[in-house]
Amino acid sequence: MTQHLDDAFLADWAVHSRFGAVPGTNGVDRQAATAADGEQRAWFAQLLEQHGFTVERDAAGNQFGLLELVPGAPYVLTGSHLDSQPTAGRFDGAFGVMASAHACFRVANELRADPSAARVNLAVVNWFNEEGSRFKPSMMGSSVFTGKMPLDAALATTDPRGVTVGDALDAIGERGAGDVFGGDSGREVASYAEIHVQQGRSMEEDGVTIGLVNATWAAHKFEFTVTGAQAHSGSTLMVDRRDALLGAARLVVAARELVDEFEPGALHTACGELNVYPNSPVVVASEVRLLLDLRSPSADVIREAHASLQRTIERVQREDRVEIAVTAEHSWDQNPYPEAGVELAREVAEELGLTHDRVMTVAGHDSTNMKDTVPTVMLFVPSVAGISHSLDEFTEEADLVAGVDHLTGVVRRLAGGALLD
Amino acid sequence: MTQHLDDAFLADWAVHSRFGAVPGTNGVDRQAATAADGEQRAWFAQLLEQHGFTVERDAAGNQFGLLELVPGAPYVLTGSHLDSQPTAGRFDGAFGVMASAHACFRVANELRADPSAARVNLAVVNWFNEEGSRFKPSMMGSSVFTGKMPLDAALATTDPRGVTVGDALDAIGERGAGDVFGGDSGREVASYAEIHVQQGRSMEEDGVTIGLVNATWAAHKFEFTVTGAQAHSGSTLMVDRRDALLGAARLVVAARELVDEFEPGALHTACGELNVYPNSPVVVASEVRLLLDLRSPSADVIREAHASLQRTIERVQREDRVEIAVTAEHSWDQNPYPEAGVELAREVAEELGLTHDRVMTVAGHDSTNMKDTVPTVMLFVPSVAGISHSLDEFTEEADLVAGVDHLTGVVRRLAGGALLD
Repeated sequence: MTQHLDDAFLADWAVHSRFGAVPGTNGVDRQAATAADGEQRAWFAQLLEQHGFTVERDAAGNQFGLLELVPGAPYVLTGSHLDSQPTAGRFDGAFGVMASAHACFRVANELRADPSAARVNLAVVNWFNEEGSRFKPSMMGSSVFTGKMPLDAALATTDPRGVTVGDALDAIGERGAGDVFGGDSGREVASYAEIHVQQGRSMEEDGVTIGLVNATWAAHKFEFTVTGAQAHSGSTLMVDRRDALLGAARLVVAARELVDEFEPGALHTACGELNVYPNSPVVVASEVRLLLDLRSPSADVIREAHASLQRTIERVQREDRVEIAVTAEHSWDQNPYPEAGVELAREVAEELGLTHDRVMTVAGHDSTNMKDTVPTVMLFVPSVAGISHSLDEFTEEADLVAGVDHLTGVVRRLAGGALLD
Repeated sequence: MTQHLDDAFLADWAVHSRFGAVPGTNGVDRQAATAADGEQRAWFAQLLEQHGFTVERDAAGNQFGLLELVPGAPYVLTGSHLDSQPTAGRFDGAFGVMASAHACFRVANELRADPSAARVNLAVVNWFNEEGSRFKPSMMGSSVFTGKMPLDAALATTDPRGVTVGDALDAIGERGAGDVFGGDSGREVASYAEIHVQQGRSMEEDGVTIGLVNATWAAHKFEFTVTGAQAHSGSTLMVDRRDALLGAARLVVAARELVDEFEPGALHTACGELNVYPNSPVVVASEVRLLLDLRSPSADVIREAHASLQRTIERVQREDRVEIAVTAEHSWDQNPYPEAGVELAREVAEELGLTHDRVMTVAGHDSTNMKDTVPTVMLFVPSVAGISHSLDEFTEEADLVAGVDHLTGVVRRLAGGALLD
């Protein structure tokens, strides 16, 4: 690609991270449907319009930029999400959206010059609430879009202060009236492409510029409710206590210790969220809710880890006299991306002379939803030290630019009809 | 005492627990300076005024009922606190306030009939924010009253939503202008008496009706801040993580395991409050703040337990690569109540034919502050199974009535000049 295209991308990239910037850091705090998210969406809509795209929002708050080149034809859709975790990096999600926009701007210019090359139209998407920090679950916008979550359930979801998704979207003026694709819209998605920073460190270590994502790790995610009995935390005899926080703490420790039962790297575990009731200085907790995740490339490892965790749960219930209930869970097996998309991405990398390799994704992405619906390509660029969901997240500019080039190649082929029929 | 006096107490007792009642339970949720606290304070002021007492509030929100019988003489002060923990019992604190009011009503009637028996005046107190659940620290009102906490610091304390004590007191109309005792008020406290449910089960087990509180357990209370690094909780390699919640969970477990290093009953430990940042489903926590308490009748046990805890902290810091800092702490040795007050309470119990024994208190009370300032008597009545800070807290009516009778005897002697000079 020529320098002026790189410069155009980098100029917009420099602006995008001002929205929700955390003072004194290189990171952002731009949770879904906050004021910062709303301001960035308004700016992003202007950017799309300046390049001739029409901006529409659907009822779930997904933001689309549309360019119809072939009347009535379906669309190649490409994007990611602009929302972030609290005090997070500026790359996660946002790189994918900005790269998608510039890939489409470039391909649009090519197709305007040579309309005969176009078989499908172009669309950029900024999915609503991929992160799931303010409103659970994550990947909300793409889940509604792909029919995996009812719209009403998404709109009724509340944040910790009781604000619903519907009200939060109204507050930033980002709640659309109906469908942008499917339904009565008259538009269909032909294919989907997404690019993301890796959130792991294998590509950096292996010197790979383009990751060809071929599968998602298996996972089993739990919400546990640990129930004890409220008591005075000073005067109550230790033998009389049924301490829900103690039970929960034993699960947090057990999750970490599970990892050592398997080969290094075979199992990732985590407890990211834990809430205590009544959470008062002199009261033994009566209830703790916590999330606990098991992730592995191997479903067998997940099953073994789950069985071991279950033995710990039974021991903690017995010894600490608390009840531990699974109040929500969901799981999936190792989940492949379509081979045709991986091959297409490999060809583009070869063409551009970019180092590449197949990689699995541990994290979920909106493409995890989309790949079950339409032909999909998922790409990674390296992330320094694999630091993610952190103010210290970083990807080298050369890798960003290479990623935009590569995604442009993918979008160009998809616009020309690749992966169709 | 005669039946009509018991009946008068029980009638008011039946009304008092309607304020902040938790539907479907026998308990209350009446945290400091909430609407429920305000409504009960208004009712309590009416009750005091109906019995001829003048109601005043000081600048820290302590509520007083005053009856001057001997112009210019000091006052016997008696009371406790009407605020509660979240979803707590109706006895804790409130019994002491209601018993104090009725003890004063009875003694006031006696002294009105025989003014020559009075050497000091009568005052009832409802201390502000003894519980410390909404606003920390606990025993706030009596700490300001006894000069242990600056008034400005108390008023500037915020709850988790950022509301200050000052604003919360204004909102319920319970912030007074200045001092009610000391300062420019022209009034002095001669002596203090408080009664409380035990919050332990020894008195019930030993068949003791009146506990003569002779000391407070030693304690060392910590606020720890565990610092790790924010990271993606799925994709980050386990060896790269610095998980603050894991470090905190190890402290919660260690606190419980410390107990087993000592004789049964020699050490109580607890973590009642724990807050996680960013507390998001897919983010490794970067910071956890938790409270950890060590309590024992023996300061030596506290010291040994603290040393053992310190070894655990060093190991967790090393192995889990987190930092654990003490961000606040306070400690006290075993703390005796004045012997003269214990003996006075014993004499009253003998006179009334009530079973009695010396007991230590594990929990803190407003009398812990007052006893450092004026002659003080601290009394307990039994609590069934020692259940405290729980909706299931319960004390038998016969014990409540005996407690009011006993406190009346104590207040009568204090009004007659006992414990002075």
